[in-house]
Amino acid sequence: MRPLILITNDDGVNAKGIHVLTEVAREFGDVIVMAPQTNASGLSHSIVSSRPIRAQEISSEEGLTICSCDGTPVDCVKLAVEHFCPRRPDLVLSGINHGSNSSINVLYSGTMGAAIEAVALCIPSIGFSLLNHSPQADFEPGLPFIRRIIRTTLENRLPAGITLNVNIPRLAAGEIKGIRVCQEANACWNDSFEKRIDPQGRPYWWLTGKFVCDDPSESSDEWALAHGYVSIVPIHCDFTHHPTIEKLKPLYC
Amino acid sequence: MRPLILITNDDGVNAKGIHVLTEVAREFGDVIVMAPQTNASGLSHSIVSSRPIRAQEISSEEGLTICSCDGTPVDCVKLAVEHFCPRRPDLVLSGINHGSNSSINVLYSGTMGAAIEAVALCIPSIGFSLLNHSPQADFEPGLPFIRRIIRTTLENRLPAGITLNVNIPRLAAGEIKGIRVCQEANACWNDSFEKRIDPQGRPYWWLTGKFVCDDPSESSDEWALAHGYVSIVPIHCDFTHHPTIEKLKPLYC
Repeated sequence: MRPLILITNDDGVNAKGIHVLTEVAREFGDVIVMAPQTNASGLSHSIVSSRPIRAQEISSEEGLTICSCDGTPVDCVKLAVEHFCPRRPDLVLSGINHGSNSSINVLYSGTMGAAIEAVALCIPSIGFSLLNHSPQADFEPGLPFIRRIIRTTLENRLPAGITLNVNIPRLAAGEIKGIRVCQEANACWNDSFEKRIDPQGRPYWWLTGKFVCDDPSESSDEWALAHGYVSIVPIHCDFTHHPTIEKLKPLYC
Repeated sequence: MRPLILITNDDGVNAKGIHVLTEVAREFGDVIVMAPQTNASGLSHSIVSSRPIRAQEISSEEGLTICSCDGTPVDCVKLAVEHFCPRRPDLVLSGINHGSNSSINVLYSGTMGAAIEAVALCIPSIGFSLLNHSPQADFEPGLPFIRRIIRTTLENRLPAGITLNVNIPRLAAGEIKGIRVCQEANACWNDSFEKRIDPQGRPYWWLTGKFVCDDPSESSDEWALAHGYVSIVPIHCDFTHHPTIEKLKPLYC
């Protein structure tokens, strides 16, 4: 039987990135797409619990069913696995995100929220992102690497509880040097809310900010991306910082 | 100078839990509250980027300013630190959440999203949750432990990059046995979407589910809570699973 691959994203079902990923995934298996109806960027691991979710099949052909819903990327994974997949998927793919999810961006990312949710459901998963926010971004140069990463994952599985955060540098075909398995760079956002006044004289704030990375480590994802490599960071969903447990016991217990 | 304590939550500025936490925090310092206007449960680490945020001061007296906004818990922390705090807070507190955020629930929790965001901004933080969803929950039995944890944290600081996920069992005064510093239990949600049909004949789905914990470890938060202890799990915001990096290199590089 061909592998069953569930695909979602956070840019919405009509984004170019998910169409490209769907075409690549069809080379490896039967595909079900369940994606947010509209842009759901920045939704992290959020779920909808205060209202019900609407979902619908958009199209269906041999080996490909496309659906959308008004839930979050995490809801897409949960709902599709339970109600829209004919059997348990062998792999969940999320993306290709229009924009980076490297380093600390994984915290805010709906793309990676979906990939992490799949792992919480014990389904292997990969999140893909391209360092290009444009709706018309050129995903072509990264496709050989995406194919390689999907093939390797289907052939070898992933360790239990691990998803892959894959980021692809914005380079022309032939300029990407290879793949590096990395750790998240130690970086942060210097946020800056821009205060404006509306025509009624009331204030409102737009979130802006500057990504700041001072991490010089050559084993980080930011280093890999800056030097022309695709970065893979193995991510897990147990946030416990184990080394700190023993340090805190004498203080708090 | 008295410590400056920023407080937020995900149940909204009018929830009982944040009022109780505010009163306790005032024993330790000056307090600024910035909380969502309405319930923002399940928003995890999400941020609002597609629209501006509205925020307003609700009340102000000596040592206490209360504000609310229409952003997420993470937005509350970002916006308050930059625009509503007279100086950088010494501590961010989130909660007290009406309901558990133990084990894998930390993934979905807006309460813990806010606490993690504070750490990403290099401000020590603690998220508090009571294992009682009721809007009228009795927070009183947990208050001596909350006081102790706040005092210990202000006196000793926390290791860089670490926030505390504190859960309080639902017990009467005097029945709580003490505090345990723990790891997240290995648990999951068995989701089940309930499908219904609206009066127009169209389907919709309500997220429900059952929390399943088969982790027998006595060092887990679920064990501690089931045995009458307050659980503290040290949480960090680098999701890299470092031991897996070397394992993946020969496969993917």
